[in-house]
Amino acid sequence: MKSLLLSCKNFNSKIKKLATRPASVIPEPIKQKIYQTDKAIVALVTVEDTDDIYETVPKLAKEIKIFSNDTQIKTIVLFPFGHLSNNLASSEDTIIFFNLLEKELSDYETIRVHFGSHKSLLLDIHGHKGNVRFREF
Amino acid sequence: MKSLLLSCKNFNSKIKKLATRPASVIPEPIKQKIYQTDKAIVALVTVEDTDDIYETVPKLAKEIKIFSNDTQIKTIVLFPFGHLSNNLASSEDTIIFFNLLEKELSDYETIRVHFGSHKSLLLDIHGHKGNVRFREF
Repeated sequence: MKSLLLSCKNFNSKIKKLATRPASVIPEPIKQKIYQTDKAIVALVTVEDTDDIYETVPKLAKEIKIFSNDTQIKTIVLFPFGHLSNNLASSEDTIIFFNLLEKELSDYETIRVHFGSHKSLLLDIHGHKGNVRFREF
Repeated sequence: MKSLLLSCKNFNSKIKKLATRPASVIPEPIKQKIYQTDKAIVALVTVEDTDDIYETVPKLAKEIKIFSNDTQIKTIVLFPFGHLSNNLASSEDTIIFFNLLEKELSDYETIRVHFGSHKSLLLDIHGHKGNVRFREF
């Protein structure tokens, strides 16, 4: 698992099209096409095929909680982002990962973005120290 | 070297403060505090201490040229981004890397962002297929 955690003053994403690559991708059903919030911790997360999901999710959740506490930002965007590794988990495992992560963060307002689509992405990232955090577990 | 290449409709970054971490960081002199453009390929690049710079720079430049050709976007933002790896090159090597990369892209309009500072960062990324490309050499 690799993740970029971003302290954002604005976030927006719109689904444009379902993904067709890798050949094995199985997109989720689309419930919502546009995601928008002002103040948020945005977690861009790449689940990898070597991950032990049940070990990794709590570690990532802990880092997100620390970031939320440091910045006093209580909205968390969980964004499937298959671009931090060339070694991706299956669609099934990725979806399980995000569902578990959302559960671990049930005390926060979470925005869970769709898996398996091409999306526009607006990230307006604060300039403070520690605004971008890379985590690899 | 790890890089995220992004097809953007808007890019903005402002220097807020010089970096003080890692302890070995040597920031460049600041020539410009604000960077702004509308249409650009933004290259977020992490130079690693195992890189052979003279081999890696041409490979990355080639990928950027392909991306520019695919999207017909001719402005390239070269952004030092120490957040895609935990294994960073020295400040000296990072600066050499970016200077060489800028030379390799001398046929393009390049915006070379400052190394060694905390910056705000606005990325407004298109939603087309192939809008985000991860490259690792």
